[in-house]
Order: sequence, then C-alpha cells, then structure tokens
Amino acid sequence: MSAALAFNRITIVGVGLIGGSFARALRKHASVGTIVGCSRQREHLERARQLGVVDAITTDPAKAVRDADLVLLATPVGAMQGLFEAIRPALSTDTVVTDAGSTKTSVIAAAKAVFGDMPPRFVPGHPVAGTENSGVEASFDSLFAQRRVILTPTPQTDADALACVRSAWQACGAQVTQMDAAHHDHVLAATSHLPHLLAYSLVDTLAQLNEHTEIFKYAAGGFADFTRIASSSPAMWTDIVQANRDELLAVLDQYTQGVATLRRAIETDDRAAVHACFERAKAARDRFAPGQAGQRGDVQ
Amino acid sequence: MSAALAFNRITIVGVGLIGGSFARALRKHASVGTIVGCSRQREHLERARQLGVVDAITTDPAKAVRDADLVLLATPVGAMQGLFEAIRPALSTDTVVTDAGSTKTSVIAAAKAVFGDMPPRFVPGHPVAGTENSGVEASFDSLFAQRRVILTPTPQTDADALACVRSAWQACGAQVTQMDAAHHDHVLAATSHLPHLLAYSLVDTLAQLNEHTEIFKYAAGGFADFTRIASSSPAMWTDIVQANRDELLAVLDQYTQGVATLRRAIETDDRAAVHACFERAKAARDRFAPGQAGQRGDVQ
Repeated sequence: MSAALAFNRITIVGVGLIGGSFARALRKHASVGTIVGCSRQREHLERARQLGVVDAITTDPAKAVRDADLVLLATPVGAMQGLFEAIRPALSTDTVVTDAGSTKTSVIAAAKAVFGDMPPRFVPGHPVAGTENSGVEASFDSLFAQRRVILTPTPQTDADALACVRSAWQACGAQVTQMDAAHHDHVLAATSHLPHLLAYSLVDTLAQLNEHTEIFKYAAGGFADFTRIASSSPAMWTDIVQANRDELLAVLDQYTQGVATLRRAIETDDRAAVHACFERAKAARDRFAPGQAGQRGDVQ
Repeated sequence: MSAALAFNRITIVGVGLIGGSFARALRKHASVGTIVGCSRQREHLERARQLGVVDAITTDPAKAVRDADLVLLATPVGAMQGLFEAIRPALSTDTVVTDAGSTKTSVIAAAKAVFGDMPPRFVPGHPVAGTENSGVEASFDSLFAQRRVILTPTPQTDADALACVRSAWQACGAQVTQMDAAHHDHVLAATSHLPHLLAYSLVDTLAQLNEHTEIFKYAAGGFADFTRIASSSPAMWTDIVQANRDELLAVLDQYTQGVATLRRAIETDDRAAVHACFERAKAARDRFAPGQAGQRGDVQ
C-alpha cells in the first residue's frame, strides 16, 4: 500500500534528526522524485547531500518550497513564524505543508498570524519520536517505525491534504492519530515537556554542587537513564518550553504539589503514605510500560 | 587472582536480586564450599535452591550464619537492626559480615545499637548496581561487573575483614572504593535516592490526572527511560527514604529551589536563563555519561 505512494518533489526545511529521518524513510518506502533540503547553514546542507539524505539544497525557504508536492517544516518551533513568512509568497495552493513541531497551538497561531487564517493545505503534526541526538548525522530511516505521529488538523484543514500527510507518515511506519491541538499540548506537557524540564533541572542542580565531580562518578545505570533526556538540544527545548509555557507551568505546579506532599510524608516519617505513593507509581508504570522493565542497570 | 579466593561457607541473608547475584558471581569466580541462603519466606528460599543459587536454606538467621566465613546481609535496610539482633548470639568472632544496604549511616547505627560498638569484622558496603526488578529470579552472575561497590569501614573495622570483603566484590568484577558513611549517604542521596523519589512522584502525579490513560498512551521512549526507576521495589525504597531522610530532604530542597528558579525564568519568558540552564545541564550530562547518548528513543 505504502509503496504506491508517490511524490515528484518533497521539501524538508530543517534537515536534522527528524527532517533527515523523514527523508530517508520516504526514500525507502515511497516513490519520490526529488528531495530538496533547506537549512540556514550551507555546510549542514552539504553534509545532508553527501549522505544522500537530500538531492538538492538551498538556504532560501521560498526557493525550496517552489513546486513541491509536500513540505515538512522540521525546525525548532520558535522558527516557524519566520518560515511561514518566508515561504508564503512562493507557496503553490497545491502544495501540502506539514510540520514536526513538538507544540501545536503555537505553530497554528504562527500560521494564522502570517496567512490571516489557517491555510487549508497546512496540516499541523508532531512525530512523537526522536533521540537526544541532533543533526542529520543522527538520522535513520526507521526512526518513526511503530512510533506515534499526532496530527492536529483544524476545521479549515483540507481532507485531501490531511490524507496525504497521514499516508506519508504511515509509509514511514508510524501510527498516525488525530487530536485537537490544545489537547495535544496538554498531554505532551505532562509526558514530554515536564520530564525534560525536570531532568535538565536535576542535572543542573547537581552540577552546581561543589562535589559534582564525585557525585557523577557514582551516577550509574538508573541515573543515566533518568537524565538521558537532559542531553537533548537546548535550543530546541528552549523553544518548546516557551511555546507551551502555560500547559507546562500548570502540570509543573501539579507535580510540585505532589512532591511537596511526599516531602511532608518523608519528613514526618509517615511510612504508610510514602509506601502508598511508591506503590501507586509502580503499578501505573508497570501498566503503561509492561515490557520495558529490566532492560538496564539501576542505581540503588 | 580472584580464582584463588576461597570460602568454606558463605551465608546470604535476603536472597533477592543483589544477594542472589552475589552468590552466583562468587560461585562462578571463587572457590566456594557451601552457600547458605536465609530469608523469611520458605517458598522464596526453595526457589533459590531450585535455581542453584544456594545450596542450603533456613529461615533462621542465627542458624544461617553459624560457621560462615562470610555473611552478606542483603535485605531492605529497615530490616538490618532486627537481623543484627537475630544473628548476634550465633556469630563467631571469625565470621566476616558485610551488607548491601543502600544507606550506610543507618546500618552502622543499627549495628552499634545491637552490638554496643561497631563489630570489628562487620564491613558496611553498598554495591551501586541493580535493576528495577526484584527477587532471586532476576539475579545474574554479571550484575556487579564493572559496577562500583562502596565500602564504608569505621575506625573499628578490622583490616583483614575489610580485605576479605574487598576481594569478594572484586571477584564479582566490581570496582571497589572506600569512603566515609556520611559522605556515601550524601552522594547517593543526590544520584540515586532523589531521582527515585522524583520518578515515583511524577508517575504518581500523572496517574492521578483524569486523563491518565491517554497521557500514558503518548508516553514513549524518553518518558519510559525517565520513569523506569519508578518500577523499583516500593518496600525497599520506603526503607531507603526513611533511613537517609535528612540528606534526601536537603538535596530535594536544593532541587526544588533549582526548579523554582527555572519556573520563574519560563514564566517571565527569560529565554536566556532557560537556555543557559539547559546548556549547563547538557554539558554536565554529556561529560559524565559521554557514551550513553543515542541508545534509546526519546519523546519530543
């Protein structure tokens, strides 16, 4: 089915981990004429071409999107509004545009600000996939296999454009789901944005302790897992945190309350309350990730 | 070198992941006559014997330690004082005793409370290894390979006893280091106890949100890593949190301050401060775990 999918010209703006992996996956699983790569940095683009990820390169977004069937915007979310402005004059009404931004309300607001209303052929999306590595060198064609891609169409979104984007992600092996943009941002604030913030903050706090060299010396398995996401791109995450600020702060405050409750239980030696919290968490964790226990060492 | 290590009789009290793995590793890498397993639950012990982890079993700690060359206490730390009381009448002055407790000040205090002073042949220790799985079924002989074991001898500790315990852990493949018990508890509060508390609390908080089923549905790679330690044994961790309460609360408060500072920066759109925090964390994380990036999927 996916082998029947064909594009004359695909444009990837932001040829990093996500953009590069999308290009590699479509090259492998669909029929694609030309893949155009666009980025601010020419060296970066030349590397992408050397690697065979893209066929043609340009640093000009307007040139890049001309005559494209499908455009993926895979830059940090803070760059989206500027990109919309840059591509608007060159964008054909036939071209389907999607994005890979980790926040959706902010991207939709940026599109509305530039285009006046939501362009019918713009399909906001978010592949819930990645690694903490950045750059086209880190890209690979199976990054999206079995992973979820969330599309957040608006009432203005064209059904054909939506079907096109859905098919492209399905060709990459992804499970495509749809939801409202606000709900997306609410859910991802909890499961992605908050954990990143907590991991960054923990590593930053410990690094500032005087004895940090020795502290990290005893930081084995479980700690390495827990803090892996603190190796993610600071620029990208600064954008995400700003773009989804309100949802993130709301769930952070809920979390802070939970920690404060647990802190009081520990301080007052309320073993039953501490144990009950740990039990509830273990039960929930084992339920949502039953196959994921025991793969790695843990610090005890 | 380690092949020369010989014991007539080793006793493991608490034949779970740690005790079972210690028995398996010494059986493989040292010359061991008999391994005696002791636990409160007979079914559990019989399983350990069936698996060939121990040769003889008893639920009576006093019987278990009789005539042993080396005793490992590998129970939750809250059980240590009761164990010391149980084994005291039967313990030969020749027998070397060590423990695998995740907190050291509390275990030393328990020993002093029972024995009047630190027994010279008791060597407090902590293998910084494990998985989030519990029980003898989860044990394996290479659990301690390349992992750190921290010994925290006191001024009363006999040099021969210390050397014996050191050799046993080295035979298991571990890198043995020594430090003061208070310093151990300070360092481990930061790198192990705090992350466990934060992970438990995060999963518990999210599980209490109404939409939790759907939230966890979008909880992929990075979140699974981040919360893996929330699958650890609640009983064991309730003990640890209580035993190392003061150090844990102190580092939790430092962390809470760090999060509050980051929260203010996000709320006031202070991008430079947010970015600087993320950059510092990434730099520290990449420094202490340079080889550990890119092994797993991440949620973005």
